[in-house]
Amino acid sequence: MMMDAAALNAFLERDFGQVAAQFCVESAEVEQLMLRLRVGVMHLRPGGTVSGPSMFGLADVAIYLAILSRIGPVALAVTTGATIDFLRKPEAGADLLAETRLLKLGRRLAVGEALLFSEGQVAPVARASMTYSIPPGAAQGAAPV
Amino acid sequence: MMMDAAALNAFLERDFGQVAAQFCVESAEVEQLMLRLRVGVMHLRPGGTVSGPSMFGLADVAIYLAILSRIGPVALAVTTGATIDFLRKPEAGADLLAETRLLKLGRRLAVGEALLFSEGQVAPVARASMTYSIPPGAAQGAAPV
Amino acid sequence: MMMDAAALNAFLERDFGQVAAQFCVESAEVEQLMLRLRVGVMHLRPGGTVSGPSMFGLADVAIYLAILSRIGPVALAVTTGATIDFLRKPEAGADLLAETRLLKLGRRLAVGEALLFSEGQVAPVARASMTYSIPPGAAQGAAPV
Amino acid sequence: MMMDAAALNAFLERDFGQVAAQFCVESAEVEQLMLRLRVGVMHLRPGGTVSGPSMFGLADVAIYLAILSRIGPVALAVTTGATIDFLRKPEAGADLLAETRLLKLGRRLAVGEALLFSEGQVAPVARASMTYSIPPGAAQGAAPV
Repeated sequence: MMMDAAALNAFLERDFGQVAAQFCVESAEVEQLMLRLRVGVMHLRPGGTVSGPSMFGLADVAIYLAILSRIGPVALAVTTGATIDFLRKPEAGADLLAETRLLKLGRRLAVGEALLFSEGQVAPVARASMTYSIPPGAAQGAAPV
Repeated sequence: MMMDAAALNAFLERDFGQVAAQFCVESAEVEQLMLRLRVGVMHLRPGGTVSGPSMFGLADVAIYLAILSRIGPVALAVTTGATIDFLRKPEAGADLLAETRLLKLGRRLAVGEALLFSEGQVAPVARASMTYSIPPGAAQGAAPV
Repeated sequence: MMMDAAALNAFLERDFGQVAAQFCVESAEVEQLMLRLRVGVMHLRPGGTVSGPSMFGLADVAIYLAILSRIGPVALAVTTGATIDFLRKPEAGADLLAETRLLKLGRRLAVGEALLFSEGQVAPVARASMTYSIPPGAAQGAAPV
Repeated sequence: MMMDAAALNAFLERDFGQVAAQFCVESAEVEQLMLRLRVGVMHLRPGGTVSGPSMFGLADVAIYLAILSRIGPVALAVTTGATIDFLRKPEAGADLLAETRLLKLGRRLAVGEALLFSEGQVAPVARASMTYSIPPGAAQGAAPV
């Protein structure tokens, strides 16, 4: 681990500007990172449910941070591909949590997946997997996943 | 065709509230629908490029509207799955256009795809395909794709 | 559970003919199903590694059987969408195991995911998620996932 | 173009051994490659329709060949991710054709897509997109897509 939850939250605040306030890294271990989306009006669709792009963004930030937790803040990993399945309607008025893990951290590509939950619920609202291109040299120090 | 470009834009304004101003249906034919994202500050990531969730949202709205153009505004189609490949960095300061077509319009499922372009560019910035669950009865009147 | 591992293996033998001999359900619980692909010459690519279509087929059969374990053998679930990430080269000469779980079992759609491993290895060789259309009435008896 | 249809078919025969007989490159232009799957008993599922893994394999080989047509036979491109939507049941007794194009041919990643048709039909049976990792140096000579 190159960055723990506190380091990741500090990174968010410094480099992600106004977006940072929407997110909070709850925990960051080698096996799993948990990211919270503080659901606000801007994330809602007509009808009160969390929008698809908001869920997409949560999964993207979560897996990105899981990579940074392993290779440090110098990296400029770029999302190259993403798949998402929307499973259930999120609860109105509840935050979303992304349970995230890396499946591969190679020299050129990283792949992670996330299950999204409405806080307090057992059944996931969405499943996502994303691939990132790692800039040359950036993954040097990290133990491969 | 149940709705043309003007009808779809009127639908956006009536039912999508503040989001509607970001989008404009440029054309809507049986073979292809073209949707514009008026890129503004809210769509940008640090660095000036359009964010992944904004591109995801553009493709989602575009394919959704392509379905509505065929089955009319009564439908409550729900996105069940999405895949997106990010191919190139969008141009700074240019709108995005989604060239969209339906591949299937069944009684239960619809599948569409979109290529996203920075306005004025030939090479696409992203490719997306999305699946929608169609509520029972809604696709009755439409000719199947 | 409508079908356990023994019932699923008997189903494979009866309805999948010559393909059945390639597969073996190792275990089937509500939480997880484990399916083995007995890797043979027909599954190999030049170079000795398991081919992409063989891994795709393993994930497809595994998630399909996970659905049947819940709704019984009457169903005619149809694969409507699939995504797969190839993470590492499979070991030469080792069987593949698919660790499978259902994420959603609705009245119309089921979604499952699988991690594929070369037997005896900790790091997965592939990740897959697949969506199935459930014929009307088939999921009636099953507790929803 | 580094390889035309004849060169690609010769490559298939030399390097893909017994698999080669299943495939035939019908045409290969910069804009589009067309690959035929000669559907035989081995590609069929119980019921007479072409199996999912066979369609997956067709799309994979087609996009792979589209890359080789641009960077030549030296390459060892590896499939890293794939998504496929199954849209309709293929016709019994008809070959499948994959209408294929490259969306990106970068130094490290290539992305292509394919629409699959039963020969003689207008509506596609499947849509696929796939990503390939390009070995360092291999794409040097090719004009980027």
